[in-house]
Amino acid sequence: MNFAPNISSHRILYHFPLSPQSRAVRLTLLEKNLPFELLIEKPWERRDPFLKLSPTGDVPILLEANGFSINDAMAACEYLNETNTDHDLLGETAETRAEVRRICHWFFTKFTLEVSQYLIGEKIYKRFSRQGSPQSEFIRAGKTNLGYHLDYISFLNSRRHWLASDFLSLADLVAAAHISVIDYLGDINWAPYPEAQEWYAKIKSRPSFKPLLQDSVPGLPPAPHYTELDF
Amino acid sequence: MNFAPNISSHRILYHFPLSPQSRAVRLTLLEKNLPFELLIEKPWERRDPFLKLSPTGDVPILLEANGFSINDAMAACEYLNETNTDHDLLGETAETRAEVRRICHWFFTKFTLEVSQYLIGEKIYKRFSRQGSPQSEFIRAGKTNLGYHLDYISFLNSRRHWLASDFLSLADLVAAAHISVIDYLGDINWAPYPEAQEWYAKIKSRPSFKPLLQDSVPGLPPAPHYTELDF
Repeated sequence: MNFAPNISSHRILYHFPLSPQSRAVRLTLLEKNLPFELLIEKPWERRDPFLKLSPTGDVPILLEANGFSINDAMAACEYLNETNTDHDLLGETAETRAEVRRICHWFFTKFTLEVSQYLIGEKIYKRFSRQGSPQSEFIRAGKTNLGYHLDYISFLNSRRHWLASDFLSLADLVAAAHISVIDYLGDINWAPYPEAQEWYAKIKSRPSFKPLLQDSVPGLPPAPHYTELDF
Repeated sequence: MNFAPNISSHRILYHFPLSPQSRAVRLTLLEKNLPFELLIEKPWERRDPFLKLSPTGDVPILLEANGFSINDAMAACEYLNETNTDHDLLGETAETRAEVRRICHWFFTKFTLEVSQYLIGEKIYKRFSRQGSPQSEFIRAGKTNLGYHLDYISFLNSRRHWLASDFLSLADLVAAAHISVIDYLGDINWAPYPEAQEWYAKIKSRPSFKPLLQDSVPGLPPAPHYTELDF
């Protein structure tokens, strides 16, 4: 948290397109129809002006028009949902909110530890930061673990309209933020997971998702089916 | 989330004493003076009745008297804070809540990834689950990373009364939940981090902390200074 010395006249999201944490906040802003400027930050460059906002160099940073900044994706999503009550993404009862948050944390902690740190860490961050070369045993571990998580998405989607509830919630946005980066890399074979695929097709076709499907990082273009709504 | 078939007449926390996630929920219950029964669960035993409540086998599980259960520590803490408004642990403004949540997530994600998965993973879970022997390079990595996190706690404590704010918040409980397990293992040399030590001494002396200082896991007793208030 920080109140920046230079107060901007509008909200800014500093992001990297292939960071799941960045995507979670971006989707929240888009789904709630909130205006914002999107600025790309490459975390491995560790630019001095950016480190003033984000001492660890991590993305995303949400910088509000009043100068208040948040450098944690889940805290930023909760903040946006609390301060902009239209299109509530958490639900009306404490029980629903607990379930939405549980699934969000599942992706920010368990999925990150078991899948993203291997696949995104090895294929994206190592590539761009030029710190070593991707290790095939880590990539294999990430892909094996991914299967369990796709099974879990299938299970959740088979008993509700959306992952945490019968309405689209923050859980769907956070899950899609993580899954979509892995799909960009071409690492998801959807065939064995029809329910998970059905859920992802549903969220992929929302207007809020369109800008994410247009992302293309120089040097690492998306897998061919990444942009297709019928995949 | 689950509504258990056998509704208990009271709240139960299924925990493992040396799980930081379990400690976070336990401290929240104690700090808010909420009644609960504490049952030990050894996650590596994967007991069938427990897997019905927690399909991944993870602790903690908070089971409310009405049968509603939550198998995520942060979601459980938020739920307890929402449904029991005395001794609020999040704060009155959206900005304060964002900062409290940011620090909580820091520990549940970053600290877990950089410190706990190495030190707790190697020294506790490998030992009790008998899956391989602790690897010294992982333990070294965890200890190196720990230094950065103690520096960060010192930094936070030097500018506020508590980590996220001027009142004791969920951020302090979650941070102490994580730090106290590492301290139990004897892996913290406090001397170079006097501000972090000052913060930990303050939280260690609270009545809510006393039961945690009495924990002793058979086969893995605490480091000698673990229970001392003047360490």
